[in-house]
Order: sequence, then structure tokens, then C-alpha cells
Amino acid sequence: MSQTMADPTGGMRRTGAVTAMDSWLLKKFVHAIGAPPVSFALWDGADICASDAEPVGRVVIHDRKTFMHMLLNPNLGFGDGFAAGAIEVEGDLIACLEALLRAMPAGADTGVLARLTGLLPKTHANTPAGSRANIRRHYDIGNDFYRLWLDEELVYTCAYYAGETDTLERAQVRKMDHVCRKLRLRPGETVVEAGCGWGALARHMARHYGVKVRAYNISHEQIRYAQERARAEGLDDRVEYIEDDYRNITGEYDVFASVGLLEHVGPENYRTLGAVIDCSLKENGRGLIHSVARHREQPMGEWIEKRIFPGSYVPSLRQMMDIFEPYAFSVLDVENLRLHYARTLREWLQRFDRARETIEQMYDATFVRAWRLYLGGCSASFASGDLQLLQVLFARQRCNDVPWTRAHLYRD
Amino acid sequence: MSQTMADPTGGMRRTGAVTAMDSWLLKKFVHAIGAPPVSFALWDGADICASDAEPVGRVVIHDRKTFMHMLLNPNLGFGDGFAAGAIEVEGDLIACLEALLRAMPAGADTGVLARLTGLLPKTHANTPAGSRANIRRHYDIGNDFYRLWLDEELVYTCAYYAGETDTLERAQVRKMDHVCRKLRLRPGETVVEAGCGWGALARHMARHYGVKVRAYNISHEQIRYAQERARAEGLDDRVEYIEDDYRNITGEYDVFASVGLLEHVGPENYRTLGAVIDCSLKENGRGLIHSVARHREQPMGEWIEKRIFPGSYVPSLRQMMDIFEPYAFSVLDVENLRLHYARTLREWLQRFDRARETIEQMYDATFVRAWRLYLGGCSASFASGDLQLLQVLFARQRCNDVPWTRAHLYRD
Repeated sequence: MSQTMADPTGGMRRTGAVTAMDSWLLKKFVHAIGAPPVSFALWDGADICASDAEPVGRVVIHDRKTFMHMLLNPNLGFGDGFAAGAIEVEGDLIACLEALLRAMPAGADTGVLARLTGLLPKTHANTPAGSRANIRRHYDIGNDFYRLWLDEELVYTCAYYAGETDTLERAQVRKMDHVCRKLRLRPGETVVEAGCGWGALARHMARHYGVKVRAYNISHEQIRYAQERARAEGLDDRVEYIEDDYRNITGEYDVFASVGLLEHVGPENYRTLGAVIDCSLKENGRGLIHSVARHREQPMGEWIEKRIFPGSYVPSLRQMMDIFEPYAFSVLDVENLRLHYARTLREWLQRFDRARETIEQMYDATFVRAWRLYLGGCSASFASGDLQLLQVLFARQRCNDVPWTRAHLYRD
Repeated sequence: MSQTMADPTGGMRRTGAVTAMDSWLLKKFVHAIGAPPVSFALWDGADICASDAEPVGRVVIHDRKTFMHMLLNPNLGFGDGFAAGAIEVEGDLIACLEALLRAMPAGADTGVLARLTGLLPKTHANTPAGSRANIRRHYDIGNDFYRLWLDEELVYTCAYYAGETDTLERAQVRKMDHVCRKLRLRPGETVVEAGCGWGALARHMARHYGVKVRAYNISHEQIRYAQERARAEGLDDRVEYIEDDYRNITGEYDVFASVGLLEHVGPENYRTLGAVIDCSLKENGRGLIHSVARHREQPMGEWIEKRIFPGSYVPSLRQMMDIFEPYAFSVLDVENLRLHYARTLREWLQRFDRARETIEQMYDATFVRAWRLYLGGCSASFASGDLQLLQVLFARQRCNDVPWTRAHLYRD
């Protein structure tokens, strides 16, 4: 595997035989991360497993440089090593990663360097220009790529499965309906959407709920696709896609909706987002924010922030309150859908794996491995509870035009 | 009315004619509180209403001393004046109070003295001994009194109305079922309840869900009543009522439930409450906290804290996270039932008013007026959104034994 490593000077060539010190360090490391039911092996060493349980998988580290990087900074070191092919996971990727996460001591630190990263200047700040650069790096890498493994509507957020037999396609439609029902959309109403992806939710709202939607997004590729598709489907009189930042939203609407934007906003901008909602919502308006969250405040995983989602940050529910409290919004309903996202991501990874060869031709093997780790790692994180998925429904404090119960969400 | 005032030296005797200064001050006051659609009148002065809308009621202030107290500290001054009979509200009490609350500028301060109360030493601290004294002052004033206006099970928390025609009795049973369903009680499981009132929920759980319940409360009168009733109904093998503080809970349980305790815990003890839950919940356990809340952090209304619920405090959702975050609980579901509590309190006030003469004989007219203001004021506060009612369902971060959707709550 070392031929495909990102760093041409590293790799197997300079890695001598496994020393007693290497083995000792690996044992220490395996205990430090909570003795997971996973085997670990160095390039020519024996398997080490600190758990009494049957190992659910095997992690092989192919060279000393990668090993040292992982010891100093497990999160970034493991991620970069995996993407480079210098670390391999044998067995089911998601099950193995979930076992690693579940063993981790609560509040575990991710390493020496990670402790210092809070002190470093932010390289991916979410200023208006910074956000554009951050979004471009993930969402503008090619619609053809996303078409290979997302559903046909290109919904790139947590689906909502009503039962075991739901397909991804069906569950994405259900998610959109679940959001629309929570927002109680009525024909003729106006909706502003902050961060619209490829525009599926806005089209769904306009088509099935008779509302007019104005949807904002700073990804050029996504907006272009969304506009074309709305035109092709004859929805462009009811859906307007605008290539602009959520901070530049204008107008007044009955409904504010945001599905999968908050992860890119940054906690330093939550009050600004609240102010935008406050300005854009009518007196009796209501809103919904759907976001990845954590059960408590934590720094962002370094690898995912550096390599996959620059500028991203996953808040706790407490942190999310910065959006609502200053503007006298009250929270009506919070639903945690983390197991749904674990399943959504598992399905995405399966489809990604089926298209693996095509994707490797479009990009390269490092890209494929990095994305497999991202999709599998996120699925594992939702399954282990390290990540949550929260839908927060809110309205102005004084608004009594709210449903008496939530039964209307579950009538079919 | 001045004969019934608490302060025998105040009142009409020393109140001269309304001066130009009195009228000017009243006008200033009425504008400062947001020009509500309510008329205000001084003892022999003309009505003042600063709103263009039709007044929904009339507030009459019978003497200068009460008026001055209200100007300096509107919250306590109005409350004490009302309880003393020196301030009267004509028209529907709840509608009038709601109109006052809705007009209040957001984040409005409640007066000069209120601004200083944060600096004063706490007189009703919730130490174990302090809590006992605080609880005694509200809940131990007589089971016969509460029997006059609560439902037959003596449920003294927000009911859950499925429709317009639900009676209070029906809605209280529905609330208990709603809580039990959220907690997915299974026969044979064990439940610990922190703060059990007269024990209705514990009995309901044991009778209808086949669980064993251990219920804690520091109100002697409530525990005595609960124990007697469990014995009389043959439930004492499955429900154990313990006269002790939630801080002294021992044992391990499948389920933690607390309905209407948190208001008496105090934010300085939320981490302690979280630690108690953490110690008492099994690995796959789940819990529910049902509490009055606010849409953002605010000091407690002075009158209600001094005169009705000593030591009470109503938290924001953000503050409530102090219970869950330190112990790696994750929030599964938050439901806001504030309109249900507005209706519950309205029904309590109607029943209270029907028993008014009996209650006045048991206590006195000041007591009756104070409790009418408390019940009516709280109903108005829930209707205006100044108060929220949140049910927060939670489980350990790692627990995947959670329902796939919330549909099971709405199947009948």
C-alpha cells in the first residue's frame, strides 16, 4: 500500500523491523484509547488486542512514521494514515470504527497536538469569503460525483426511515415530508431556506405543499444544478435559488427552514444567524433547524475539519440556544434522529463502494479512501452517540398559532 | 377593599385626592410597561389607557402607598397590592394579565428594586434543610385545600389535552400516559421518581404499566397521603413512597422520572441532580424531566418566589443542559406543552373560584386573592409565552435502545 501514500519520502522504505519499543508503544496506545475489541498490528508485528471480547476488526499500521503521527495526534494521524493507505482497516469499516468510538473514555482527548489546536489561529474562518472557500472545497467538487451515490434528488442530509424496509429514496422523501409537516406548510405561504444543497427540499415544498420558496446557497455547482432542475420540472415560478450567503437573506417569510447549514456556520456566527431569522420571519412565522449536534460542547475532530469539511463545527444543543434565546424564539420541539443518520450514511457508503472504481478514475485512490473514512466514520459516530442529529422547531415566544399536539406528524 | 389590606396603617385613610403628579406618574408607568390594552385607574381618578385597542380589563389601585410600591417594584408591588385587595382587576383576570404580559417590551425589567435583588443574599436557598422549609410552605398547607380544586388523583402539574372536549381529569390521565409512553415502561422494570407530589404518577405507572416505583418527596403531607392511598388501593407492594430529598436517592433503576420537581431544585444544584440521575440509572436506562421553563435565562418573578413558591427557579433549556451534559446524557426529545399548562391553570382557577368561600373560611381573603393571582398569572404567562412547559426525554449517549420514531406515542 505504501506506493499510494501521499508523502513519497515516508512509507515502508524507511520503516525497519518492529522494535520492542514499537510494540510497547502500541500496547500503551491501545490501552489509552479504552482497550477496544479491535486488533492492532504494526508492519511486521503480531496482533495486539487489549479487550477480552472477540475483535470486530483489525487495524494495520504499515510504517513507523504513520504510527508516530497517530500516537502524537490520533485523530489526524489515523485519518491521514488511512487516506494515504498507510493504515488499513480489515473487517467491516463502520463496525470497527464504532467499536473504537464506544471504547473511548468519555471526554477523551484526541492527543497532544489536538490539545494545542485550540490555540492556533483559525485557518478556515467562516467570514463571508471564508465560507465561500470552505463550501467550494466540499460541495463544488462535481455534481457527477455526488450523483453516483446519493439518491436521485441529491439529498445530502439525514434521511428519515419509518421502518426497516424503507429505501434511501423513500426515506429522503419521508424526511422532507417530516420537515414540511413540522413546519405546517400551508398553500400560498412563503418559505426562505438557508443552505439548500441541490435544492430538493425547496422543490418538494413547492410541488407538494403549494408554497413559494426562496433558497440560498453559496455553492455555485449546487445552485446551478438546482436552477436547471427547477426549470426542467416547471417549478421555477415557485422556487427561486439564489447564490448568496445566508447573511444576505432579504424579505419577510412565513417559514424559515435550514437543513444541514448549521454545521458550516460556526458558533461565532450563531447570534448572526438568529438575527437573520428574526429579520426574515413574520410575526406568526415558524422555523426549523436540522443539524448535526453533540451531546456536549467539544472541539471539532481535526481530520474531518481539515480534510473533509473545512470550517465546519458541530454544536451542542446548549450552543444552539445562541440562535434562539437572544431573539425571543421559543423551542417547540426537538427530535434526535441520530440512528437515522447512522443508517443514511451506511447506505451512502454502500453506494459509494459500488461506484468505487468510477470514483477512483475521477479522482484518485487517496480521495476514495478519505471519503470512505468520512462516510464510515460518521455512520459509526452517529451509531455510537458521539454525534447526534437534532431537528429543532421554533416560533416566536408570543406566537400561539402552534399545534396542540404532535399527533398530526404521525397521521398518514 | 382597604379594610382587608395587610398593612393596617396604609390604605385609603391616608390617601388624599389624586394629584396631577399621581396621574402623570400613572401615565408614565402605563407607557413604560408597553401601553397594554388595559385601563388603569387610581383611587378617585379617571381611567387611563395608552392603547388604541379596546381595553380587555381594568386595574384599579386603591391607595397611594400601594401605587408607589408598584412604581418602584412592579412585580412585587402589584402582587402584594392585589393580595391585599388594594389593587383590583375588573374583567377576566387571566385575559387581563395576559394582555399586560404581551404588551411588556421584550427583556423588560421589572423595576428599580428588582434590579437590586440579584445582589441580595438568597433567603430561600435550596440546601437540604432549606428545600424542606420551602416545600413545606407550599405543599404542606393542607391536603383538604388541594382536594377542593385539583382532580381526584391530585395531580398538580401540567395536564395533556388531546382535544377541546377533554376534561381536566381525562387530560391528567393522558399526561401520565404520555410520560409513560415516552419512557416506554415495560412490565417488571424499576422506576425512581424524584418529586412525586401526592403520588398519582407512581400509582398510575404501577397499575397500568406493571413497573415497580420508588418515589421521593420531602413534603410530609403529600407522602403521608400517597402512602395511605397506595395501601388503600392495594398498590403498596409495587409503589414505595419515601419522605426524603432527591439528593438521597439510592439504588439503580431502569427509568428516572421527574415531573414538576426541577422548579424547586435551583440552578446551582442542576449538576448535583445530574449526578443523582447518573448514579441511579442503569446502563440502558432512560429518563424524563418535565418542568416549567423559560425561552431564555431570567431572574425569577419576585412576588411568586417570595409569596407562593419560596426557593423556586424556572430555567431556560440552556440552563437545563447542566443536568445532562456533564454526565454524557443525550437529549432524545423535547416537547413544549405551554398551551396545555395555560389551560390546566385556567381550569384550576375555575374550580378554585367555585370553592372560594370554603377556602376563605379555611384561610382568609388575602390567601384567596394571592392564590387567584398565582393561578391566573401563571395561566396568563403560559398563554403569553413568558413561561414554557418542557418535557425532556434523555438517555445515555451510548444507548441505542431508543425508538426509531415517535409514532408509538400517537397510536391509540
